[in-house]
Amino acid sequence: MANQALIKEFQELLGAENVFSSEADRMSYAYDAAVLKPVVPAFVVRPTTQEQLGRCVKKLYENGIPMTVRGAGTNLSGGTIPDTSETVVILTTGLNRILEINRDDLYAVVEPGVVTAQFAAEVARQGLFYPPDPGSQAVSTLAGNIAENAGGLRGLKYGVTKDYVMGLEFFDATGEIVKSGSRTVKCVTGYNLAGMLVQSEGTLGVISEAILKLIPPPKASRALMAVFADVQNAADAVAGIIAAHVVPCTLEFLDNNTIVRVDDFTHAGLPREAGAILLIEVDGHPAQVEDDAAAVEKVLHANQATAVHVPKDTDEKFKLWEARRMALPVLARCRPTTVLEDATVPRSQIPAMVKAVNDIAAKYRLDVGTFGHAGDGNLHPTFLCDKRDKDEFSRVEAAIDEMFDVAIKLKGTLSGEHGIGTAKAKWMEKETSRGTILFSQRLRKALDPKGLLNPSKLVGI
Amino acid sequence: MANQALIKEFQELLGAENVFSSEADRMSYAYDAAVLKPVVPAFVVRPTTQEQLGRCVKKLYENGIPMTVRGAGTNLSGGTIPDTSETVVILTTGLNRILEINRDDLYAVVEPGVVTAQFAAEVARQGLFYPPDPGSQAVSTLAGNIAENAGGLRGLKYGVTKDYVMGLEFFDATGEIVKSGSRTVKCVTGYNLAGMLVQSEGTLGVISEAILKLIPPPKASRALMAVFADVQNAADAVAGIIAAHVVPCTLEFLDNNTIVRVDDFTHAGLPREAGAILLIEVDGHPAQVEDDAAAVEKVLHANQATAVHVPKDTDEKFKLWEARRMALPVLARCRPTTVLEDATVPRSQIPAMVKAVNDIAAKYRLDVGTFGHAGDGNLHPTFLCDKRDKDEFSRVEAAIDEMFDVAIKLKGTLSGEHGIGTAKAKWMEKETSRGTILFSQRLRKALDPKGLLNPSKLVGI
Repeated sequence: MANQALIKEFQELLGAENVFSSEADRMSYAYDAAVLKPVVPAFVVRPTTQEQLGRCVKKLYENGIPMTVRGAGTNLSGGTIPDTSETVVILTTGLNRILEINRDDLYAVVEPGVVTAQFAAEVARQGLFYPPDPGSQAVSTLAGNIAENAGGLRGLKYGVTKDYVMGLEFFDATGEIVKSGSRTVKCVTGYNLAGMLVQSEGTLGVISEAILKLIPPPKASRALMAVFADVQNAADAVAGIIAAHVVPCTLEFLDNNTIVRVDDFTHAGLPREAGAILLIEVDGHPAQVEDDAAAVEKVLHANQATAVHVPKDTDEKFKLWEARRMALPVLARCRPTTVLEDATVPRSQIPAMVKAVNDIAAKYRLDVGTFGHAGDGNLHPTFLCDKRDKDEFSRVEAAIDEMFDVAIKLKGTLSGEHGIGTAKAKWMEKETSRGTILFSQRLRKALDPKGLLNPSKLVGI
Repeated sequence: MANQALIKEFQELLGAENVFSSEADRMSYAYDAAVLKPVVPAFVVRPTTQEQLGRCVKKLYENGIPMTVRGAGTNLSGGTIPDTSETVVILTTGLNRILEINRDDLYAVVEPGVVTAQFAAEVARQGLFYPPDPGSQAVSTLAGNIAENAGGLRGLKYGVTKDYVMGLEFFDATGEIVKSGSRTVKCVTGYNLAGMLVQSEGTLGVISEAILKLIPPPKASRALMAVFADVQNAADAVAGIIAAHVVPCTLEFLDNNTIVRVDDFTHAGLPREAGAILLIEVDGHPAQVEDDAAAVEKVLHANQATAVHVPKDTDEKFKLWEARRMALPVLARCRPTTVLEDATVPRSQIPAMVKAVNDIAAKYRLDVGTFGHAGDGNLHPTFLCDKRDKDEFSRVEAAIDEMFDVAIKLKGTLSGEHGIGTAKAKWMEKETSRGTILFSQRLRKALDPKGLLNPSKLVGI
């Protein structure tokens, strides 16, 4: 069917205001947050009911047209970049209703396009807590978080998005509805298809509704900042905190390059000579917070922290965390291109990983700042470069290649929370096995026989 | 290939001592803990290395022979009953090594046949905690727990087996090795195949190694027992505890029939007139335990508990929990056949569910005792009957049918933790959708094209 006829059909189905086909509109959905070449889609549709969503999928499947489902497009591995100029983008932002927040049974039911931070705020207003907090939460959508298994700062203590998905409804490639999981804490009825959809990057189905677990919020919390002369001490402190059986809700790391860059920009008086800073927050029962904070302070001093700051109030805490919040935006403004990586290692391997990142950057004459979630071994080495400089960018690619080798050697993983997309597909076999790739492709082909769901992403089809 | 020739090949591969083909041996592996007809397998093999396990799978696949993988055979839905007399049982009890317990990075690596309670005890000796505690933990194996997504008493606060699987290695139907997940808290490299294998009941792959999450143990705990004149008050108390933002580590329920039966047997002086008993345990930081226990006591009294007992020491606590521990064995000895169900509802629906179970039992003139995990809505209505009495057993089946209808109407699920197996397959579509069954069958067929992995289980092939 010619595009014009199909566009007309979609206009009838969704209303003309929910079909975007002008050049400017199509350009707007050609890229995401990954450093990859944009691909301009054929057109964009925006269903506003779950039933419409299913009909969009069915119509595209029947017409053999590839589809990329997209929330806010904050993806860092190309998962929401259209595959080809034939691709139709399905936008979920019109499906943004919180259908239920159940305080008796501690769950919520949501549509795919609900914005993460808005959801967390509404849950908080009802006296409950939704912990997953990816960096993009102010704009990212819940189904986008599910499709990527988004992490964030609270992973160590509270887990990631996967740990909060109790059930899903989704349309398979043909537009048939599939249900998995339930409103109960325990459910083993059939395959764990909800778990399989998590981190499937839009390739196995189109999420139409999610049941998410909620928990009671912690009653108290306390933040601490510790300054270290060198990275090894900071890393030893991380290990020491865990060995003391304290599980902080956040345990963040910034290296010297990040500290200096943030201070250059904010003039906040950060310790520019520091090898590393740790930002730590403990939460829970007030007495536990007291004990945990005391135990953490003891570990920090035992590992040669040159200073430990404990903010007195919320304002001071907000200021303390400014350095962490500003890390990415400040690094990103230094050079035209920011390559934000997320190779992840068991936390005891953080010193080895930080050293390797710096050695590799020196070898390839690259500017790198490293910050991230030390508590769960999920660091974000951030390469600052200019993609137009072909020589420099090929050195970035070589450096990343080497960095992944180190991560895998340290029993870590290619990607802690950013996804595979098209950016990391070529390294997957190295971490897993040939059998894993073939198994994944068989799985995918069976569930999407025409190869229309985000076809070039993840393992390819 | 004739069985004798194949048996010889397996004897060469595994040693004669690890191939069982006598009638007595085969009979021993013909049944599991479900009330279903035994099926005597062709023979039984017991690999003792992961490599041998892979070679067993490959050999059976190449010969087109169906296989049922089995740990301790404690399955309650027929998942470990051989499909036909052609089936070869692969026993995992020879793969029982704990390969690593990592205290810095809070994980363990295990072989499939490690016994759950032995693993939990070894983890405890190393100062850490593995929470999943299915009723069969004294003999059940970790890969059996994974294949069934086993629950237990701690589900409400600590989650179920699924929540502790960080990564898996498994052999696909053809014997190729597949890897998913890692030793890191965060990992989004490829499909969440580890999550998909959880609760797949031996139909998608044969688990050869698992990476399991460990956590620091709670520092303190306290148990309470509360007696209620009627079920509604007990159920209201459960809701009140959650509304008070207390999440107990266990919150168990026993109905009058169970109480009386246990007391008949143990002469423990249980409150025989009680409509229900709740057994509650809170854990965590000592101050939190104090606060939580006080909050729980307040809720219990506010909901007309006629008595609240707080044991003074470990011995008293052990005695208090005797009633819960004895519930199933005591009910099981009342009649020749015990049908232990696990339909599960959102916890706020417990009063409706308990009432429905009793009404249905009265309608079909059946003896039922109900106990279970009130905190997560996972009750175990236990029908006491005699399978040889065809009339009675057909009334049991009709009662279960009606009970599932009620559970689904209350937005619950067919099975909280026992699995689908062959016992519940016929109800699956009612809870999910036709699309879900077809999707699951396509998935399965793609990953096991010859249909050899536990073929009649779950959705069928």
